[in-house]
Amino acid sequence: MEEPFRIQTEKYAPLEEGRVAAYLAKIGIVVEHLGGEPGGWNVREVGDGNLNMVFIVEGPRGGVVLKQALPYMRLVGEAWPLPLERSYFESLALIEQARAVPHLVPRIFATDRVGAAIVMEYLTPHIILRKALKEGRALPNLAEHMATFLAESLFKTSDLYLTADRKKTLMREFCGNIELCKITEDLVFTDPYRLSSGNRWTTPQLDETAAAFRADAALKAEVQLLKLKFLTSAEALVHGDLHTGSIMVTDDDTRAIDPEFAFFGPMGFDVGALIANMLIAAVAHRVHRPGELGDAYRTWILDEAEQIWTGFDAKFRALWQTQATGDAFTAELFADADGQAALAAARDRYMARLFEDTLGFAGAKMIRRVLGLAHVEDLESIEDPDTRATAESKVLAIGRKLILNRAAITKFGEVLHMVEEIDS
Amino acid sequence: MEEPFRIQTEKYAPLEEGRVAAYLAKIGIVVEHLGGEPGGWNVREVGDGNLNMVFIVEGPRGGVVLKQALPYMRLVGEAWPLPLERSYFESLALIEQARAVPHLVPRIFATDRVGAAIVMEYLTPHIILRKALKEGRALPNLAEHMATFLAESLFKTSDLYLTADRKKTLMREFCGNIELCKITEDLVFTDPYRLSSGNRWTTPQLDETAAAFRADAALKAEVQLLKLKFLTSAEALVHGDLHTGSIMVTDDDTRAIDPEFAFFGPMGFDVGALIANMLIAAVAHRVHRPGELGDAYRTWILDEAEQIWTGFDAKFRALWQTQATGDAFTAELFADADGQAALAAARDRYMARLFEDTLGFAGAKMIRRVLGLAHVEDLESIEDPDTRATAESKVLAIGRKLILNRAAITKFGEVLHMVEEIDS
Repeated sequence: MEEPFRIQTEKYAPLEEGRVAAYLAKIGIVVEHLGGEPGGWNVREVGDGNLNMVFIVEGPRGGVVLKQALPYMRLVGEAWPLPLERSYFESLALIEQARAVPHLVPRIFATDRVGAAIVMEYLTPHIILRKALKEGRALPNLAEHMATFLAESLFKTSDLYLTADRKKTLMREFCGNIELCKITEDLVFTDPYRLSSGNRWTTPQLDETAAAFRADAALKAEVQLLKLKFLTSAEALVHGDLHTGSIMVTDDDTRAIDPEFAFFGPMGFDVGALIANMLIAAVAHRVHRPGELGDAYRTWILDEAEQIWTGFDAKFRALWQTQATGDAFTAELFADADGQAALAAARDRYMARLFEDTLGFAGAKMIRRVLGLAHVEDLESIEDPDTRATAESKVLAIGRKLILNRAAITKFGEVLHMVEEIDS
Repeated sequence: MEEPFRIQTEKYAPLEEGRVAAYLAKIGIVVEHLGGEPGGWNVREVGDGNLNMVFIVEGPRGGVVLKQALPYMRLVGEAWPLPLERSYFESLALIEQARAVPHLVPRIFATDRVGAAIVMEYLTPHIILRKALKEGRALPNLAEHMATFLAESLFKTSDLYLTADRKKTLMREFCGNIELCKITEDLVFTDPYRLSSGNRWTTPQLDETAAAFRADAALKAEVQLLKLKFLTSAEALVHGDLHTGSIMVTDDDTRAIDPEFAFFGPMGFDVGALIANMLIAAVAHRVHRPGELGDAYRTWILDEAEQIWTGFDAKFRALWQTQATGDAFTAELFADADGQAALAAARDRYMARLFEDTLGFAGAKMIRRVLGLAHVEDLESIEDPDTRATAESKVLAIGRKLILNRAAITKFGEVLHMVEEIDS
C-alpha cells in the first residue's frame, strides 16, 4: 500500500472554501487525480459544521473530499472542545484498515497532522447506509462486504495476525486517542444510566422507562462489565463508531468511513455497533413503511444482521486457519492432528466469547440511542411522539435483553426470535 | 511522592568502579544520603554481570545501589541483545508502585535514561526471598506485605482507581517495553511446549515428561489462551516478573524489586507468579530439609501462599469499596442499596475471574521453571538428579493441574489439597 502524502502545515487554521484549491495544488497525486488546473476546480463545503469541515473538490478527471477537524462540537448547544488530533487517529486507522480491506474504505491521498485534515477519495454516488435502509434500497452485497470488513480489519490488527512487536507499536500510538474514547465511555456506558444534562428521550412518554433504566442495578452492573472490557481489552484496532451512519453504499459498493474513535479495544464493540444499528433500522422500518413492502424489507434487514454475524464468524475463522502469523496461539504448537483438534476447540470458545461480547455491546449501543445524548435518524424521524416512543421502547427492550441474556444466547437466530417477540 | 533526580548522560557507556563516585557526586540527594566526601565512599560491584552492573556504594551516613543495564544477556551462552530502555521502564514502574506502596519497594534517588541506570536505596540486611525460604527463615509479615503490594500496586494502576486519561497515558509509555514482554511471551507461554534450543530439563529423567508436555494439545491450547490474555488484557501495571528472586526480605521488611518487565497486563500474572514460586519453594523445601522442621516450614510456606491470595482478595475488595475513583464501575451508578448489592455481585464475579487467571498463570510459571530456559535455585540446588527430577515432576504435575482445572477451583484450599495429593 502506498503511504499517503504528508502535508506539512505549520499551524492549525480552519480552511475556507477560497483557500482549498491552493492547499490541494501542492499535492501531486491530488492534482493528477482531479485533472485540469486548480483555478478550474469546483469546491463546495458540505459538512454540517458540527464536528468537521468537509469540502468536495471536483476537477475534470475526478473528485476528492477534504475533511478537516474543528476544535469543538456544537451538538450539545454550547462549545464542547474536541481534540484536533482525532483527524490524525482517523488517518492512521484508515491506513491500517486499507492494508486489510482497501476496497472497503475510502482511499487516502494525503494527511495533514497539524492542519487536522485528510484528503480522500470522493465517494459518489454513495449515500449513507442509514438513509439507504430507511428508503428500503436493495443492497445485495451489504452483509458480505461488512462481514469482510469486520473480519479482515479486526483479525489483521489482532495478536492472531500481528507480531507482538508490531501490535504494541501500533497500540502505543492509539493510546493517545484519549478524549474520543472518553466520549464513548461516557455516552455509551455511563450517562444513559444516570441523570446527565446531555441525556434526552421522548418525553413524557419514556420518562418512567428512563427512570427504570437508571434504577436497574443488575443492568447497570452488566453495562459496567462491558465498559471495563472496553477499557482493558486491547484485542484489535476497532473502528470505534461503526454505526450505519459511518458506512456509505451504492448498490454494489460499501465503504466504512470516519474511524476517528479508533483504538485498540474489544472486537465485539465494532460487530455489536453495526448489528445494533441494523436492529434499530429494522424496528424503525415498519413504522416508516407500513404494509407488505416495508415488512419484507424489515425481514431483509434482520436477515442481513444475521448474515453480518455469520459471515463475520466464518471469515474470521477462515483467516485464523490460513493466516495465523501472529504471536497468539503460535501455529507451530498445533501442527499435528491432536493440535488441530485442540485449536479448533479453542477457536470455538473464542468465537463464543466474541459473540457474547458482540451482543452485549449491541445492547448498550441500542440503549444509548434512545436514552443518551446522540440519537439516530431512524427513530428521530418518526414525527408522532407516541409512535416514536413505542418504537424506542422496543429498541430499549431488545437492548436490555441482549445485555442480560448475552451469555445464554448461542445462535443469532435467538436474537431474531427475541426481536420478533418484542417487535411483533 | 518526590520525583527522582534525572541524570542527563549524553551517551551510554558501561560504568566502571572507578567512575561511580564521580557519577554520583553530582546528585545532591545522594551526596546527602551517603554523607562524607565522594573520595571516601566505598564502591563495590556485586552484580553477576549477566544482565546488569550493580554497584553498592557506602558512605559514612548510608548506602545506595547503582544499577546499570547492560546491552546483552550472557545466560544463553552467546550474546543475546537486550534493550537498555528496560532500565527506564524499571524506573517508571518503581515510581508508579511507590505512589501506592512506598514502603514495599526500594526508594529511588535518581534515574538516568540514556545511561540506563537507577540509583536506589541500598537494602540491608535484606536477602532474596528465595534464599530465605530455602533456609527456612521466619518471615512473619511476608504474606501480609505481599498481599498489600499486590492489591495496592494492581488496584491503583487499574481502571477501578485511575481515570481513563491517566491510565491510557501511562499505558502508552509502557507499550514501548516490547522486547521484555516478548521474552515472557516466548519463555513462559511458548518455548516449554515446543523444541527450542534454549529449553533444558533434568535429562534423561524428564525426557519423556518433556515430550509429553510438548504433545499435550489440550494443555497447549489452555496455555495459549493465557498467552492471549497476557497479550491483550491491559488491566493494570503489572510487575511482570514477581518471583521469589524479585523480593528482598528481612524478618520484618519486604521489598519488591526489579520490575523491568513491567507493562499493562493481566493482574493474575503477578499474583500467579508469586504463588507459583511459593509452591515450588514448598515442594523443594522437603527435599532440602527432610524431617519435622522441614515439614513444618513447608506447611508454613503453603499457608503463606494461601494467605497471599486471601489477603490480596480481601485488600483488593476493600480498596474497591473505599477508593473506587476510576472510570470503570462508575461509583455514582451504584449508590443506592440495590446498586450496592449488584456491585457486590459483580465484584464477586470479578474476583472469581481473577482467581482463575491467577491459577492459570501460576501453573504456566511452574512449568516454565522446569522445562524452559530459566530455572530456579530451589530446584537447581538439588544435587542428585533423580531426587531433583522427582521434585520437578511434582512441580510440573501441579502446574498442569492448575492450568487445566483453573475454572473449577473456587477456593485456595483446593489448591493446597492438590499440592498435598501430588507432593505427599
